[in-house]
Amino acid sequence: MAWFEFRIVFLASLTFVLADGKNVTNKYDPTWPSLDTRPLPKWYDDAKFGIFIHWGVFSVPSFGSEWFWKNWRGSASSIYAKYMSKNYRPGFTYQDFAPDFKAEFYNPDDWAEIFKNSGAKYIVLTSKHHEGYTLWPSKYSFSWNAMDVGPRRDLLGDLAAAIRKKGGMVFGVYHSLYEWFNPLYLKDKSSGYKTQDFVTQKTIPELYELVQNYKPDVIWSDGDWEASDTYWTSKEFLAWLYNESPVKNTVVVNDRWGKGVTCKHGDFYTCSDRYDPGVLQPHKWENCMTIDKQSWGYRRNAPLKDYLTTRELIKELARTVSCGGNLLLNVGPSKDGMIPTIFEERLTDMGKWLTVNGEAIYSTKPWHIQNDTVTSGVWYTQSGDNVVQKSVYGIILNWPKSGAITLGAPKFKQTSVVTMLGVGKPLQWNASGKTVIINLPDKTLVATDWAWVLKFSDLANSVSSWDSDDVE
Amino acid sequence: MAWFEFRIVFLASLTFVLADGKNVTNKYDPTWPSLDTRPLPKWYDDAKFGIFIHWGVFSVPSFGSEWFWKNWRGSASSIYAKYMSKNYRPGFTYQDFAPDFKAEFYNPDDWAEIFKNSGAKYIVLTSKHHEGYTLWPSKYSFSWNAMDVGPRRDLLGDLAAAIRKKGGMVFGVYHSLYEWFNPLYLKDKSSGYKTQDFVTQKTIPELYELVQNYKPDVIWSDGDWEASDTYWTSKEFLAWLYNESPVKNTVVVNDRWGKGVTCKHGDFYTCSDRYDPGVLQPHKWENCMTIDKQSWGYRRNAPLKDYLTTRELIKELARTVSCGGNLLLNVGPSKDGMIPTIFEERLTDMGKWLTVNGEAIYSTKPWHIQNDTVTSGVWYTQSGDNVVQKSVYGIILNWPKSGAITLGAPKFKQTSVVTMLGVGKPLQWNASGKTVIINLPDKTLVATDWAWVLKFSDLANSVSSWDSDDVE
Amino acid sequence: MAWFEFRIVFLASLTFVLADGKNVTNKYDPTWPSLDTRPLPKWYDDAKFGIFIHWGVFSVPSFGSEWFWKNWRGSASSIYAKYMSKNYRPGFTYQDFAPDFKAEFYNPDDWAEIFKNSGAKYIVLTSKHHEGYTLWPSKYSFSWNAMDVGPRRDLLGDLAAAIRKKGGMVFGVYHSLYEWFNPLYLKDKSSGYKTQDFVTQKTIPELYELVQNYKPDVIWSDGDWEASDTYWTSKEFLAWLYNESPVKNTVVVNDRWGKGVTCKHGDFYTCSDRYDPGVLQPHKWENCMTIDKQSWGYRRNAPLKDYLTTRELIKELARTVSCGGNLLLNVGPSKDGMIPTIFEERLTDMGKWLTVNGEAIYSTKPWHIQNDTVTSGVWYTQSGDNVVQKSVYGIILNWPKSGAITLGAPKFKQTSVVTMLGVGKPLQWNASGKTVIINLPDKTLVATDWAWVLKFSDLANSVSSWDSDDVE
Amino acid sequence: MAWFEFRIVFLASLTFVLADGKNVTNKYDPTWPSLDTRPLPKWYDDAKFGIFIHWGVFSVPSFGSEWFWKNWRGSASSIYAKYMSKNYRPGFTYQDFAPDFKAEFYNPDDWAEIFKNSGAKYIVLTSKHHEGYTLWPSKYSFSWNAMDVGPRRDLLGDLAAAIRKKGGMVFGVYHSLYEWFNPLYLKDKSSGYKTQDFVTQKTIPELYELVQNYKPDVIWSDGDWEASDTYWTSKEFLAWLYNESPVKNTVVVNDRWGKGVTCKHGDFYTCSDRYDPGVLQPHKWENCMTIDKQSWGYRRNAPLKDYLTTRELIKELARTVSCGGNLLLNVGPSKDGMIPTIFEERLTDMGKWLTVNGEAIYSTKPWHIQNDTVTSGVWYTQSGDNVVQKSVYGIILNWPKSGAITLGAPKFKQTSVVTMLGVGKPLQWNASGKTVIINLPDKTLVATDWAWVLKFSDLANSVSSWDSDDVE
Repeated sequence: MAWFEFRIVFLASLTFVLADGKNVTNKYDPTWPSLDTRPLPKWYDDAKFGIFIHWGVFSVPSFGSEWFWKNWRGSASSIYAKYMSKNYRPGFTYQDFAPDFKAEFYNPDDWAEIFKNSGAKYIVLTSKHHEGYTLWPSKYSFSWNAMDVGPRRDLLGDLAAAIRKKGGMVFGVYHSLYEWFNPLYLKDKSSGYKTQDFVTQKTIPELYELVQNYKPDVIWSDGDWEASDTYWTSKEFLAWLYNESPVKNTVVVNDRWGKGVTCKHGDFYTCSDRYDPGVLQPHKWENCMTIDKQSWGYRRNAPLKDYLTTRELIKELARTVSCGGNLLLNVGPSKDGMIPTIFEERLTDMGKWLTVNGEAIYSTKPWHIQNDTVTSGVWYTQSGDNVVQKSVYGIILNWPKSGAITLGAPKFKQTSVVTMLGVGKPLQWNASGKTVIINLPDKTLVATDWAWVLKFSDLANSVSSWDSDDVE
Repeated sequence: MAWFEFRIVFLASLTFVLADGKNVTNKYDPTWPSLDTRPLPKWYDDAKFGIFIHWGVFSVPSFGSEWFWKNWRGSASSIYAKYMSKNYRPGFTYQDFAPDFKAEFYNPDDWAEIFKNSGAKYIVLTSKHHEGYTLWPSKYSFSWNAMDVGPRRDLLGDLAAAIRKKGGMVFGVYHSLYEWFNPLYLKDKSSGYKTQDFVTQKTIPELYELVQNYKPDVIWSDGDWEASDTYWTSKEFLAWLYNESPVKNTVVVNDRWGKGVTCKHGDFYTCSDRYDPGVLQPHKWENCMTIDKQSWGYRRNAPLKDYLTTRELIKELARTVSCGGNLLLNVGPSKDGMIPTIFEERLTDMGKWLTVNGEAIYSTKPWHIQNDTVTSGVWYTQSGDNVVQKSVYGIILNWPKSGAITLGAPKFKQTSVVTMLGVGKPLQWNASGKTVIINLPDKTLVATDWAWVLKFSDLANSVSSWDSDDVE
Repeated sequence: MAWFEFRIVFLASLTFVLADGKNVTNKYDPTWPSLDTRPLPKWYDDAKFGIFIHWGVFSVPSFGSEWFWKNWRGSASSIYAKYMSKNYRPGFTYQDFAPDFKAEFYNPDDWAEIFKNSGAKYIVLTSKHHEGYTLWPSKYSFSWNAMDVGPRRDLLGDLAAAIRKKGGMVFGVYHSLYEWFNPLYLKDKSSGYKTQDFVTQKTIPELYELVQNYKPDVIWSDGDWEASDTYWTSKEFLAWLYNESPVKNTVVVNDRWGKGVTCKHGDFYTCSDRYDPGVLQPHKWENCMTIDKQSWGYRRNAPLKDYLTTRELIKELARTVSCGGNLLLNVGPSKDGMIPTIFEERLTDMGKWLTVNGEAIYSTKPWHIQNDTVTSGVWYTQSGDNVVQKSVYGIILNWPKSGAITLGAPKFKQTSVVTMLGVGKPLQWNASGKTVIINLPDKTLVATDWAWVLKFSDLANSVSSWDSDDVE
Repeated sequence: MAWFEFRIVFLASLTFVLADGKNVTNKYDPTWPSLDTRPLPKWYDDAKFGIFIHWGVFSVPSFGSEWFWKNWRGSASSIYAKYMSKNYRPGFTYQDFAPDFKAEFYNPDDWAEIFKNSGAKYIVLTSKHHEGYTLWPSKYSFSWNAMDVGPRRDLLGDLAAAIRKKGGMVFGVYHSLYEWFNPLYLKDKSSGYKTQDFVTQKTIPELYELVQNYKPDVIWSDGDWEASDTYWTSKEFLAWLYNESPVKNTVVVNDRWGKGVTCKHGDFYTCSDRYDPGVLQPHKWENCMTIDKQSWGYRRNAPLKDYLTTRELIKELARTVSCGGNLLLNVGPSKDGMIPTIFEERLTDMGKWLTVNGEAIYSTKPWHIQNDTVTSGVWYTQSGDNVVQKSVYGIILNWPKSGAITLGAPKFKQTSVVTMLGVGKPLQWNASGKTVIINLPDKTLVATDWAWVLKFSDLANSVSSWDSDDVE
C-alpha cells in the first residue's frame, strides 16, 4: 500500500467516527439543509457598512492587482511578466518579494481610528490570500507567514486587538481555501480531488487555528470554486463553527464554500465580486467592492481616475442598503503598512456623510420600494424593528436644479412630515395624485455633500413587506 | 486670445525688440543696481500658478522631510536617527539609498498631463537639492546623479521635453547653491569662504550646464544663506544669464543668491518659504508652499490631516494673486516615479476650479484693494493690461448662509454689472452708502465648489493703483 | 473530538493495517532485529572515501557555522546575535536571507569534476538541514525550498544528474529528521511526542519523495536525537526502503534514526561527528569530518589556520580506513554556488595522493593489526577479498630522518617483498627478532608528499582476523 | 643587523644628509632630466618583495576582473554583459554595486599579520582604481568613496595604521590617474587634452591629499597611458613630492606618469604588467604580478587552476630578484573584507620559504651572472653592500633526481665553501674544468619545499659587475 493510499483509508474511517461520535447537543449537522437553518446574527444586518482589507506579499510589487503572481506566471507576454523582466533579475521569485514586506509604518491603532471615523461597523482582513502567505504566524505555514519572513509581526493579531480596543467595530477575516501554487493543493487537484492532503493538512487546520486564536466574527471564505464543498469539508467545518467554536453565536460566514455553493448557502451571499443587483434580494447579501476600480490590492501606479469618487461610493452604499445588502468597501494598504492617503480620504468622507446620514443606513430595513418610481437616483430604506416610530428614508443622489424634487414612492397623508437629515426644519411638500413635490432646503444650509437624505414620518405606506426572518 | 497665444506674440515682439535694442556691449553689469533694472518677463506675472516638484534621493526614505539627511546626521535622538536604527543596518549611509531610487513608473507625459489639467502655467523641478544629487547627468556630479545611480535616466531632461511637448507650460528648475555634506563646500566654509573651490568646480559649472543643456525659464535658487553673493559669484552668473545665455529673454530668477540678498534682488521675491504677506507687495513675489503641510518631499507615512484641502489651497491662491504674488504649489513624487494620488487629486481640483474661474487669476493685476473691507474672505483682482474692458474680480471664500453678500470695496454706479463666473446671469445688487449687497445665485446652479468669483464690470473704481512697471 | 485527536486514531489503525497487509515477499520487518540482518551493500565498504556537502540558507550569512539560526536565536549575547545587530536591520529574519541564496555560479558538472578528481567514491549532499529548507522542490516545503525562494533551481536534482553523468561515484543525501523551528515539530515536541503531525505531514512524505524522485544510494539521517524511532516511524521507513524502494538493493543508511539508536543500528555507524576511534570497530562505521575545523557550512571569515592541511586529512583517511571506517570529508559551498578554492585545493591534493596510493585504500579490509607496534604513525590495511594475491599496506605518516624505518607488525619471511607505491623497485629490508628495518627509497624519487605507502607481499601474517560478514 | 635596523640607520643618516645638503632652492626641477637624478631610497631595493592589493567596488561583482565596468559597458556580448543580464535587473548601474561593498569582516590587523608572515616588506593598496572610487574619504570624490557609500570606513587609513603598527613593512598606494567614466576626464579627452579640468580638480588634488594625509612611501601610478605627462602635470607633482612633501626622503614612485614615460622615468620601472625580462636590467625595476593568473581583483568563480602554485611564485621571485627587480605580488580581497584563504595560503607559504631562504633575497644585489650556464632553473644573487663578507646564492628550482647538481657559473677555489640554507653542514663539491658538481644533502633533511638555496662563500668570482649606482 503506497503512502498516499493510507490517507484514503484514514478519511473514510474518519467520516465514520464522526458520524458515530456526534452527540445530541449539537444544533447543526454538516449538511446544507441543517446549516441553512441558522439565523443570521443580528449585528451583521445592522452594520451595513464594513471595510475590506487586501494586504499580503502582493502589496510588495503592488502592481496590476493582488493576482500578480498568478497573472505573471500565467502569461509570459502579460504586463506582469514585462514588469518583472524590466525591473527584476531573471530568476527572481514571488517569494523573493516577501523580505521587502516590512510594514515599518504599520500602526493598527491608526488603522482602527481611520476605520472608526469612516463609519464602518466591521473589518475584514485578508488573513491569507490565494498566495498562501498568512498574515498571522500559522503553525501550518512555516516560513511563509508574516512572522517568519518580512514584517516579523503578527499583523492580523495586532489589528484584531486594535479594532477591539477602539470599539464599535467587529473584526473578521477573509480566508482563501485554495492556494494557486501550493504543491499539496496541486497534487489533490491533479488527482481529481480524490486526495485531500491539502485540506486536512493546511486549509482546515489553519481555519481552526484562526478561529480559536483570533475569534473572528466574520469568515469571508474565497478560492473555493475549483473544488466541491465535499473536498473542502466545508460543511463539517461550518457545523463545528456553528456548534462548538468560540464564535458560534456571533460569527457570520459568506457563501464561498465550494463549487456551486455560492449564492445558495451561507449566512450572507456575495454571489460575485461587486455584486450589486439593484433590486431587493430574498436573502441577506453583501456587495464587496473596492475604491480602486481595477484592483483589491494597492497599486502604486494607479492614477486618480481609477479611484471611485466619494459620490460614487455613497451611491453604491445607498443602492446596496436599499436592496437589503451590506457594503464591504475595500482598501489596499501599502507594503510599508500605511492606508494610502486617497483611501483615507474616501473613508473619511464616508464617515462625514454617515455622521449626518447614518440614521438612514445603520440598523435599517429595506422598504417595500427600493428606488423611486418617478425620479431616478432616489433610494429608500426604513427604520428597523428596534425603533418604535418607524420612518422611511429617501437617499437623493442628485440635487435637483429646481430645488424641488418630485417623488412617486412615498404616500403622504395629512400628518406626514418630511425633513432633511442634518437640516432639521420640516420641509414644505405638496402631494397631488400619485406624486409629491418636496421643496428642498436652501443648499447653503445642507450639512454634507454627495447625497442627501429625506426622512419621512407617518407616511401612509411605512410598513415594510420585507421580513428578514432568518435574522435572530 | 488664449494664454499660449500671448506667448507667441510676446516672443515674436521680444525678438524684434532684442534685435533692435541689442548693442555691442552687454546690457547688464554684475552689480545689483544694474541687474535690478531688468524688466520681469511678462509670462511670469501672467502665469500666477506654478507647480513645484521636490524629488530626489530623499524620496527613497520618504520620511520626515526632504531634510532627512541633515536631520538624521544632526541629532542621534531625532525621529530620523530612530527611523534609521529601527529599519536599517548600522553603517547604512544616505548614499546607500540611491540604488533604490528606481523611478520605474516615471512617465513624464503623465506628469505633464496632470500638471496641465491643474491649470498650472509653469513647472519647477528640484534639479538638485541640498543633498547634491543631480536629477540630470551632470558632468560635475560623477556617481551622484540620476544617470549613474538609481533611475539610470535623465529625469530632468525627460520632464523638460514632456512639459514642452504638452505645451502651455513653462519649464524651470530649482537649484541649491550649497550642499550640506559636499566636502569641497565644507572646506570653503571652514576657510570663512575665502576659498571658492566648490563654487568654481561645482556650483557654477553645473548652473551653466543646466542652462545650456535644458534652457530652463525659471531658476529657483536656494541654499544660498550661509555665504555671500560674492562667494557664490551670483551676480556674475546672473549677468551672463541676462546678457548671453540662451534664455536671456525669458528666464526669471528668484531672490536667493546669497546672504542678505533674499527679498531685495531678483526677478521675483520669495522672502521665506510659504511667504504669504496678505498685503500688496511693491515687487513681484511668489508664495511657494506645499500641499503636505510638513514636508516638500513625499512622506510615505503622512496622514490625511497633514494635507491641505482643496479649499485651503484655493484660498491661498486667491490671497496670493490678490497681493501681487504667484503661487508655486509643491508636490512630492514617490521614489517609483508617481505623483501620489492625493496630490493628483488636489491638482485636479485646482484645475476644475481654474477652468471656471481662471479669468480671475491668469494675467490679472492686483486691484487697489486686496480684500474686502466689510466681509472677510473676499479677495480682489482685476483684469490685466491686455484686456480692453477692465473688470474687477472678487473671490469669495465663504458662501454666506443668507445667500447675499455685503461688500465694501467695489463702488457701484448705475451701469455696473456683477455676475458669478460659471453662472452667467447678472446678479441683483443693492448699493447703499459705502456698501453693496449682492444676491448670490441659487447654490444649486454654481459650477464649482471651494470658492466663487464675482466679476464686476464698469465699477466706479476699476482702475488699479498698482503699476507693475518692472514688468516688460 | 478535536481535530488533532483524529490523527491518533488514524495512526493506530494504520499500524494495524500495515501489520496485516504485509505479504511474504518483504524481507524485513519494521523492527531492529529484522532490519539489522540486512547485509551492507558492498559498494559502500569498497568506497572508503566520500564527500559530504553542507549547503543551505546558512550559506548566506556564512558565519559561525551551519547552526547559525539556532545559535543566533538561542542567545542574544552570542557572536551570532552581535553579527546580526551589527550588519542587518532589526527584524531581519532568517528566512529573509533566502532570496540572497542565488547560486549564480553553480555548475554541478564542475563540482562533479572536482569530486571525481579528489578520488571520492560517493557524495552526500544536505538535502535539508535542520533549518528545514529543501534543496529540491519538495511538495512538502512550499515557499521554503530552492525552487521557490533563492536559486530557483533544483539544486539537488542537478547535482545527482551531474554525479551520475560523470560516473564512478555514488550519489547520496543527508536529511535532517527534525527542524529547529518548524511549528509542527515544536507542537509534537510540546506534546511529549504524542502527536506525530510533523512526521506524517513533513518528514516521512519528504523522505519518500526524495527516494522516489532522486534514488539516492546513501541516506544520511540526522536531527534524530530528541525523539524516539517510534515517533519518527524510522523502522517503518527503513523496512519500506529495504523492501520496496527503488534503491532497496543499493542504498546504505547511517545510524541516526532516533534517540538511543545511534551507534547501535543502521548500515553503518557514525556514533558522533568526527568519530575516530583509533581502534578496529566490530561494525562498519564512518568518520564524517570537515576540512574547516570549526564548521560544516562555509564560513566567509574563516582564517587559514582553521582549515586542516592535506597532511592532516590523509592521516585521518589512513587511521579511519585502517580501523574499518569510511572517511566522509565535508566541504561547504558558497551561496554563489562555488566550492571555495581552499576546499578545491585540499580535494585536489587528496586526489593526487590517491592516484598513487589508492591501492592501499579502496576495496581494502582492515588488517589484524591497525597501527604499528614499534613506530607510531604507521597504519595498516590489506587487500580485499576480490584480490587473488593478498597484500598488506603500511601507510607511513612521517618520513624517518634516517631514511630507514623499523616496523614491528609485519612478519617477514624469506620470500617477503616490500615496495613503495609509486616507486616500484623492491626495498631492502632486514628482519631481526620481532622487527624489520626497511630502507626507504631516496626521497627525491617518491611520487607524492604527505604520506607514503609500503606494500608488503607474502608476509608471514597476511591473513586478516577481521571478517566483515555483514557485507553482502 | 636585522632589516628593520637598517631602516633606522638609514632614516637617521638620511635626516643628516638632508639637513646638511638641503639648500635654499629645491633640489629637483619639474623636468625628467632633473627628476631622474634622484637616487632610489635604499629601503626599496633592499625590500625585494611587496604585496599588491586590488580592492574596490569591482570586488562586489567580483567577476571577470577589476576591469568589470569597462568590459561590461564596452561590449553587449561580453561575458560581463551576460553576467549582468542574467543576474541583475535591467538598468542596474555599476554605482548601484557600491552599497553592497560592506567590508564587514575587514580587520586590517589581520591583514597586517598575514602580510608580515608572508615576508613582504612593503604593501601597495589600490587607493583608487580606474573606477574612480576612493578607498579613503577624499574631499574630491563626494559620494563615491568608502566613507560615503558602502563600508562607511576609511579603508586606506585603517590599513596604513595597521601596517605601521605591525612594523617591518612600508605602506604605499596604487593610484590611477585616469578614470574610465569620469565625465570631467572624458571632457578633457574629447578636447584632445587641451583642457585639464580633471587634472586640476580631481587627480592632482587627491594625490596631494593622499600624500599629506597618509604619507605613503610608494606611489604606484597607473592609468596614465592615454595622455601625456604634460596633461597630467606629473613632473610638477613629482618635483613637489621629491622636494617638499612629507615623504620626500623615503617615497618611491613607479614609471607610469604619462604616455611614453613608462620604462623611461621613475624611481623604479614596471614597463608592463607582469614584467619579467629574465635578464639583468640597467635600472631598478619591479615585476608586479598576481596569484590569480587572470585577474587582479578577486573573482568569486575562479577555479583552482587559475591560481599560481607556491612553486611558481617562488620561481618568479628568484628570477625577478636575480635580474635586479622587486616582486610585487597581488592579492584581491573580497567585498566582505577578507583575504580569500587561497591567497592567505600562498602568502603563508612564501613566508615559510623566506624564513629559511630570505638571506638570498632581502638586501641582495644581482650577481654578474643571473642564471646558471649549465643547469637551467638556477638563479643567482649576491649579498649586498652592507655585508662585510660577500656571498653568492644559487636558488635551485628543480631538485635533481640524482641528488647532485652541476653548475657552470660559480668558480670554485680551494677555500670555497658551499652550504644549503636551512641545512647548515658544508656540502661536498667537486670542481672540474668549467663546472662544479655539488652533492646536495639528503632531501629528508631540507627545511622547505618548492626551491632550495646554495650559499657560496669565498668563490673566485664573487664580485658583482653590477653597480646599482642610482641607489643611494
